[in-house]
Amino acid sequence: MSHSLSDRLTAYAEVAADLGVDAVALVPGPNFTRAVEHTFMSHERPFMLVIPVQGAAAALVPNLELRSWDLVGFEGAVFDWRDQDGYDAAFAALLAHMNITSLAVEGQVMRVFVHHAIKLAQPDLKIFDAEREISGLRMIKTSSDIDALKAAIAISERALARTLDTVRLGQNEKEIEQVLIQALFAEGAEDLSFSPIVAAGDGSARPHATARPDYAVKAGDALLMDFGARKHGFAADITRTVFLDHATDEGQAVYDTVLRANLKGFDVTRAGVTAHEIDDAVISVLEDSSFADRIRTKTGHGLGRDVHEAPYIMRGNHMPLPAGTVYTNEPGLYEIDNFGVRIEDDVLITNDGCTSLTQFPKDLTVLKC
Amino acid sequence: MSHSLSDRLTAYAEVAADLGVDAVALVPGPNFTRAVEHTFMSHERPFMLVIPVQGAAAALVPNLELRSWDLVGFEGAVFDWRDQDGYDAAFAALLAHMNITSLAVEGQVMRVFVHHAIKLAQPDLKIFDAEREISGLRMIKTSSDIDALKAAIAISERALARTLDTVRLGQNEKEIEQVLIQALFAEGAEDLSFSPIVAAGDGSARPHATARPDYAVKAGDALLMDFGARKHGFAADITRTVFLDHATDEGQAVYDTVLRANLKGFDVTRAGVTAHEIDDAVISVLEDSSFADRIRTKTGHGLGRDVHEAPYIMRGNHMPLPAGTVYTNEPGLYEIDNFGVRIEDDVLITNDGCTSLTQFPKDLTVLKC
Repeated sequence: MSHSLSDRLTAYAEVAADLGVDAVALVPGPNFTRAVEHTFMSHERPFMLVIPVQGAAAALVPNLELRSWDLVGFEGAVFDWRDQDGYDAAFAALLAHMNITSLAVEGQVMRVFVHHAIKLAQPDLKIFDAEREISGLRMIKTSSDIDALKAAIAISERALARTLDTVRLGQNEKEIEQVLIQALFAEGAEDLSFSPIVAAGDGSARPHATARPDYAVKAGDALLMDFGARKHGFAADITRTVFLDHATDEGQAVYDTVLRANLKGFDVTRAGVTAHEIDDAVISVLEDSSFADRIRTKTGHGLGRDVHEAPYIMRGNHMPLPAGTVYTNEPGLYEIDNFGVRIEDDVLITNDGCTSLTQFPKDLTVLKC
Repeated sequence: MSHSLSDRLTAYAEVAADLGVDAVALVPGPNFTRAVEHTFMSHERPFMLVIPVQGAAAALVPNLELRSWDLVGFEGAVFDWRDQDGYDAAFAALLAHMNITSLAVEGQVMRVFVHHAIKLAQPDLKIFDAEREISGLRMIKTSSDIDALKAAIAISERALARTLDTVRLGQNEKEIEQVLIQALFAEGAEDLSFSPIVAAGDGSARPHATARPDYAVKAGDALLMDFGARKHGFAADITRTVFLDHATDEGQAVYDTVLRANLKGFDVTRAGVTAHEIDDAVISVLEDSSFADRIRTKTGHGLGRDVHEAPYIMRGNHMPLPAGTVYTNEPGLYEIDNFGVRIEDDVLITNDGCTSLTQFPKDLTVLKC
């Protein structure tokens, strides 16, 4: 990433130029943080940075954030607004100042109330969802991005090891989740990547399960943990599934199938491979098994400042993936009322192959607990 | 809150009827969680519940969430979609099924890409931002909501006490933040309400400061901590400012002014008071002091499943506040390059007055550390 604010903003102006629109708007979130190298909250207060193809960028800033905004070192025009006055006048002044006819926005970050405020200020402004192109600037990770991801992953793996050491039959899912969360912060997390998934037995069959205070883990259960620490603004995302006391034959066969699919993903990954090709290779392993009816998800997603970001690793996405891309390789098999298995690694694409940033063992593990 | 899903959905249908629109759409977030009593993630996958004035509700659900969605006990039509197929066809099918001409949405929750998908499926559908009316159903807290808030606040206060016990001169803000976060989870938090603000010295002058690893706290500093635990889906939000080793005369005078403003808020609060009246009373105390130029914020905001929600306690908001409303009373004074003080309590409005859900002492505190 460029080291000056001006250089970073120029990259967004180039995105606008490539799209044939007059400007890009960023709102607080991962792109905004990347652009200004400071983190801002938004909540109910609109906050927006507009970067035009021609001319200087301008910002709409809640008045109470002005002193924090000073730290950014932004030299363009600032249109601030106070709670008691509302923000409509600031949007009108900003847009009158910009003199643009089209605007590219982050569709997965900007909320409808900001969209409405823009349209109210300038009804004829054409607004395009350019999430893919704007967030695309984050796809190739720099060496400092990779360092941050490695730090987040190392914290996550140490927390997982600590948690697995404490699992006992009869604990409920919620108790195990609390141990995991405390271990993540004790190991140095600055935040959670997302609310962890800790799911055992039939709970593991739901890809996005919520930990249950009323489910006690028992011998023979699969225990699935999908979680991550956030460090230096970057999010780890790792899943391991272990078996408690013993693994049934079915459990072992399912686990083996998922692991083969995960390993297949590594086999086919190198710079230039498409997201489609990775997903096709991984999912084909599952489809060719006797558990094909348990497939519920694609292979994975990009990972960085956001825990779900481009590229999405799925069939139909024919985007060739450059070196420096990081994605999650997380095949799974899920049978309702029975159990699920998922194995998830964070993979860095390199020119001659790929590297697993996650190092936690993934051989079938039976916890004697 | 009503105990059946059907009753809860009916309340949203009534919001639509009151607004004169055909239906309300909810997307994952606090209203969605309240409506279905389960928490769902959204990320890049649209997920939407549409509740019409006439007829049955319908849902658009990512295929991989179907097994989790089963737990909701929803009896209406479900339009699911798979990653590899995209979601446009599901939006088209859902909207064809609904046969509506207008739709009220949560403007502060719904993101632009979902708005675009709706418009693509039905270009003539009129979409209104009804954030206020939809989220308004959450304004009056039930007794179980209050219990959850009390639990979240009790955790937060125990964590604050533990953290203050460990503060030492020479620690940096980031270290103190880490102690606070670990204490929150150790005390039973299920999540953070938001990334805590831990700011000392000149950092405390920025209302939304980020903890600095390179600022060591020193004798005479104000140390401001604004944070909260989340429990049972509800978010605490509390701020205390203490002085380290000693408080300067200026620090004492500013603190006393902020405390008088905070106490004034309690004096004027009872069912039927308007948000304007509370803010006017609180801010007038600050305006009438010798520190009027240090005012940067309104009095506060509603608190519940969301850490910032209606009602916004500010001049110009003439909404009378009913019993059962919970808001933050958080006056502050901030002078750039000097220091800031904020005192924040969570206040429950009752018929004959109000109750502070926060109990942590707020007399001027000097930590001998």
